[in-house]
Amino acid sequence: MPILHEDRLFPADPETQTIARRLYASVRDLPIISPHGHTEAAWFAKNEPFPNPTQLFILPDHYVYRMLYSQGISMEELGIRQPNPPDPRKIWRIFAEHYYLFRGTPTRLWLDYEFQVLFGLEERLSAKNADHYYDVITTKLQTPEFLPRALYERFRIEVLATTDSPLDTLEHHRDIRESGWKGRIIPTFRPDSVVDPAFAGFRENIVKLGQLTGEDTSRWSGYLNALRKSRERFKQLGCTATDHGHPTANTANLSTAEASALFDAVLSGQSTPEQQESFRAQMLTEMARMSVEDGLVMQIHPGSFRNHNQKIYEQFGRDSGADIPTSTDYVHGLKPLLDVFGNEPTLNIILFTLDESTYSRELAPLAGHYPCLKLGPPWWFFDSPEGMMRFRGLVTETAGFYNTVGFNDDTRAFLSIPARHDVARRMDCAFLARLVAEHRFDEDEAAEVAQDLTVNLVRKAYRL
Amino acid sequence: MPILHEDRLFPADPETQTIARRLYASVRDLPIISPHGHTEAAWFAKNEPFPNPTQLFILPDHYVYRMLYSQGISMEELGIRQPNPPDPRKIWRIFAEHYYLFRGTPTRLWLDYEFQVLFGLEERLSAKNADHYYDVITTKLQTPEFLPRALYERFRIEVLATTDSPLDTLEHHRDIRESGWKGRIIPTFRPDSVVDPAFAGFRENIVKLGQLTGEDTSRWSGYLNALRKSRERFKQLGCTATDHGHPTANTANLSTAEASALFDAVLSGQSTPEQQESFRAQMLTEMARMSVEDGLVMQIHPGSFRNHNQKIYEQFGRDSGADIPTSTDYVHGLKPLLDVFGNEPTLNIILFTLDESTYSRELAPLAGHYPCLKLGPPWWFFDSPEGMMRFRGLVTETAGFYNTVGFNDDTRAFLSIPARHDVARRMDCAFLARLVAEHRFDEDEAAEVAQDLTVNLVRKAYRL
Amino acid sequence: MPILHEDRLFPADPETQTIARRLYASVRDLPIISPHGHTEAAWFAKNEPFPNPTQLFILPDHYVYRMLYSQGISMEELGIRQPNPPDPRKIWRIFAEHYYLFRGTPTRLWLDYEFQVLFGLEERLSAKNADHYYDVITTKLQTPEFLPRALYERFRIEVLATTDSPLDTLEHHRDIRESGWKGRIIPTFRPDSVVDPAFAGFRENIVKLGQLTGEDTSRWSGYLNALRKSRERFKQLGCTATDHGHPTANTANLSTAEASALFDAVLSGQSTPEQQESFRAQMLTEMARMSVEDGLVMQIHPGSFRNHNQKIYEQFGRDSGADIPTSTDYVHGLKPLLDVFGNEPTLNIILFTLDESTYSRELAPLAGHYPCLKLGPPWWFFDSPEGMMRFRGLVTETAGFYNTVGFNDDTRAFLSIPARHDVARRMDCAFLARLVAEHRFDEDEAAEVAQDLTVNLVRKAYRL
Repeated sequence: MPILHEDRLFPADPETQTIARRLYASVRDLPIISPHGHTEAAWFAKNEPFPNPTQLFILPDHYVYRMLYSQGISMEELGIRQPNPPDPRKIWRIFAEHYYLFRGTPTRLWLDYEFQVLFGLEERLSAKNADHYYDVITTKLQTPEFLPRALYERFRIEVLATTDSPLDTLEHHRDIRESGWKGRIIPTFRPDSVVDPAFAGFRENIVKLGQLTGEDTSRWSGYLNALRKSRERFKQLGCTATDHGHPTANTANLSTAEASALFDAVLSGQSTPEQQESFRAQMLTEMARMSVEDGLVMQIHPGSFRNHNQKIYEQFGRDSGADIPTSTDYVHGLKPLLDVFGNEPTLNIILFTLDESTYSRELAPLAGHYPCLKLGPPWWFFDSPEGMMRFRGLVTETAGFYNTVGFNDDTRAFLSIPARHDVARRMDCAFLARLVAEHRFDEDEAAEVAQDLTVNLVRKAYRL
Repeated sequence: MPILHEDRLFPADPETQTIARRLYASVRDLPIISPHGHTEAAWFAKNEPFPNPTQLFILPDHYVYRMLYSQGISMEELGIRQPNPPDPRKIWRIFAEHYYLFRGTPTRLWLDYEFQVLFGLEERLSAKNADHYYDVITTKLQTPEFLPRALYERFRIEVLATTDSPLDTLEHHRDIRESGWKGRIIPTFRPDSVVDPAFAGFRENIVKLGQLTGEDTSRWSGYLNALRKSRERFKQLGCTATDHGHPTANTANLSTAEASALFDAVLSGQSTPEQQESFRAQMLTEMARMSVEDGLVMQIHPGSFRNHNQKIYEQFGRDSGADIPTSTDYVHGLKPLLDVFGNEPTLNIILFTLDESTYSRELAPLAGHYPCLKLGPPWWFFDSPEGMMRFRGLVTETAGFYNTVGFNDDTRAFLSIPARHDVARRMDCAFLARLVAEHRFDEDEAAEVAQDLTVNLVRKAYRL
Repeated sequence: MPILHEDRLFPADPETQTIARRLYASVRDLPIISPHGHTEAAWFAKNEPFPNPTQLFILPDHYVYRMLYSQGISMEELGIRQPNPPDPRKIWRIFAEHYYLFRGTPTRLWLDYEFQVLFGLEERLSAKNADHYYDVITTKLQTPEFLPRALYERFRIEVLATTDSPLDTLEHHRDIRESGWKGRIIPTFRPDSVVDPAFAGFRENIVKLGQLTGEDTSRWSGYLNALRKSRERFKQLGCTATDHGHPTANTANLSTAEASALFDAVLSGQSTPEQQESFRAQMLTEMARMSVEDGLVMQIHPGSFRNHNQKIYEQFGRDSGADIPTSTDYVHGLKPLLDVFGNEPTLNIILFTLDESTYSRELAPLAGHYPCLKLGPPWWFFDSPEGMMRFRGLVTETAGFYNTVGFNDDTRAFLSIPARHDVARRMDCAFLARLVAEHRFDEDEAAEVAQDLTVNLVRKAYRL
């Protein structure tokens, strides 16, 4: 018996399920548009095989190892960022033995999909079959069908955006373009490292930014020019969007003199946390100003308390599975930016949240009014069946479907992309099916919405 | 095929649906009690025909034009508060063309109901039939059956409360009373314009209040007397309730000397935002004090950041669809008032919220304890099927059904009143049906609760 | 017809219901493990009959009388903490007459269960049969089968934890141990009265603590020693856990010098509210330090604004049904403690909340990472069918099932224990059944999870 049921994630009620199944059939095979994620351009530039299941599924995926760590398995045992990691097969066995921990999580759904659909494994992973899994996957990964470009095509990806620093040379993006391969891999402009004074190495990064762009980044105007030029460089490689990961949603609207003085302060290395927050806030407004000029879509991802676990951060560095959401205020936070650009017809800002209490209280009312604002899909911890249902249930009645932008897979795990889009499509259809079954609108309309959520709204929102 | 399905909004599960249908049949035809809304007494005083569908459905309804505006359609194109608005038929066509934006919103449900039940239109509105809709509605509006008083009777309204400023002469209310018509249209005392120092024209309003009441409103005691007299004037025209739209739920309990000094400060026009907030806070407590004296029920509607879009506010004024909810603290905010009047047996305070996170955390526990507190129905953005389900799901287990007060339609759109009450009745029955289907209580009890929610609790809470 | 339906609380959908029924059958008869509650050791030490239904079901249960009070029935009429209470039968009649107020609340479910399963009453309680109920219950309470120890055995309780002050002599716990009876009643160390400077009598309590332990509690080091000794005394009577009811989740990590100075300040009786909050914060970290040493599991119950109703507090004292939840910040609050002990392999901290917005935003991400953190079951107002469903729906996708700890009945009402565990088991099975029906995992896995939630995770988390 296969692991995956063809009606998985659909409501059990037979009538609703039948509608969901019909809607899903109409979007299942549409191309994948992936406008936001964390895969690496190098994979597609080099097109080399992925090494083994441990390096593919465990080591880079903080969704996976945070759960194992929470249950007392050490980062060392798991080989996370270890100079001399344990035998990958041993790590895989630990993972298989603890696979039950993922019951009820989206990770389990994605992995089951990958195991069955990509590798033909039809028995649930467990301690018993861990080695069999390891061998089957390792073998297949060496075949031409499992090379990155082949998978890209097999997944029917139309476009795949990576996330990149302004300090990145983007050489792999250039190599892909020059290779003649027709896959569309595009960069996303993510300037946190050069706009957030609390980012490790901020001052050195500003110097590097000056070197890369030939601008005098020790002064406010040169710094802004350097960012403008960097954005232009990204655009020339297909970039259509920027992305901003700030601790809060605060924005500011300082005078040039004030902003310039603040820039000097944060560059001095002597700035207070308040000044750093003001600077980040001002930079969101500057980024919006540049977006009005150059047309790049702006994504704002606020509200994560990064590196909450001090010891893990000191030992293993950023992004080690210890980022924790905090409550976020969009209404007061975004006002300064919106006062300037909120009614700008060419501006496109996509808002994300890790604070679900803002969906109905703040985000849907904001997106249901401001023409520049759209709502990104449920993010990170909420990229999950229940998370998606809550998102639609909480925002649709105020913001409708057409102030949302379809799905983001947001993943470092390339092989999970079709699994994630499949979950999203199923959940959208499940939600729509309920509305149809409750006669809130008709099935022909639901089918149109399903299509729009899957491809049309994504293309439009991200200008793809 | 008609637009409306007779089982709309009921759960798809056949057993639950059957129960919901039975419960709904027992409340469907009960009279409409509308204790809180924004219709105009002038309509019933003058009893003149409504002009055309654009003026009826689009121009006054910020639910409608905020959605259109969010999708890039300008206020000018829509003729919102324009000295020379476009041809109303053209505006109607824009609306019809974008009717798909409302999929999944309560606006769509209300309008479909109005189109079919009131105007006999049985094909979904679209660009194709926009002119047909326009013509049918325009023609019917000129017939005697569509005059305000005829509709009031057709809708089986038992009582309809408007919302009025203490500066209002209430002449239309007086005219209705003197006309001999038996419709019960009553005013609600909404003193924001004379108790909120941040309200545009506050100081002039205080002067006017003095003129209207013959009190010296330049002094604290005269000001309070003027409010007392105004309340009395409202009561004489049938008013049973006050309504307070404050940015927060803060209350205060100052000494007379402090309050008097604060009044002088806010009247000087030199007050700080903190003083203004203190004054509003104190005035909620003063209003509670007067309610203990004169028996008017007190409604508190906190938590809206009014006029968030600065440019829209400057160009189009208040209530232009850009009010955004903020997080609200009832527990600390209401304490000063409750310390004085919380156990007062004759006091009735009805609390509303735009911050759904307070339902289970603050509002249900408060209403489940304090005898003076009751919970108003889901408000504004949450006056919707999902909003109602969340409300009942989040408050019932702590506050029960009997600390809630039935439905408010809260509308400026007179024709939407039966549609809105119909949605509320269906959702209450849907919620109750689930509890019965899950054997939490029996159907005879659910039928009693449905009746209570529809008429008995409303009459009792609002003293109607 | 009996009051209780055998499929109560299961989803109405036939397929899902069938799965829920099968899962429930597999856990229904498992022993009850009650690691957190407020029953009294004296009952089991003395083993005397409970007097009458009023003293059993109404007077000690603030869930019951807060609802009656909210509807205008006075504390005096209900005999709450009255020196000369009314005839208990009269109070019972008032309760029976108002039993409809509890429709949709968990209290109703628990009471129906107790009435039918324990007392064989199969007609819904009402004004009509109030006396019959009173008589039947009173009579049965005098029989040997209704003595505390007999009920303990009939309920199949494996272990029952009480909640006790460090100032308690624990004589009843000692008596039980020495009596030879095999019931396992264990104390829980709840030091609020000696670690919270805002607790009435705090300074006297510190003196008493010194007398009880032979330590000089007027000094920081002696105070800590006294707490250490008290914990040891509890451990010797079977205690495995501590419990901390703080207004916030704040923790601190002060130097010994700072902590010592702060202790002097709070002991002086002249401390500010900020100092008192700092002291409570520091004490959570001290308690964690002692838990690392002595292995006691730490329960943190933050976020209740105690005694919100000033008049009720003055007249009737603590715990009179007027505690109201407030919003709680775990992410910043717990960080100082976690910075020191967050990765400690032997530490077990169980977090509870009255702010459901933290489930998905803060608690699940924290518990899904930190090895020392686990999530307690939905607490107080949320110990209810909807509350349980929200809890599982909001935390499972991030924290899984295995970072939760099963059910707490948290009750003062001994007879409600089986009713409460029955609701919890049914809701867990209902939740699991939906996941199985939606093919998120298989039924054999769900059955394992149901077993773990009912007994295994509780035993492990509480070290029982």
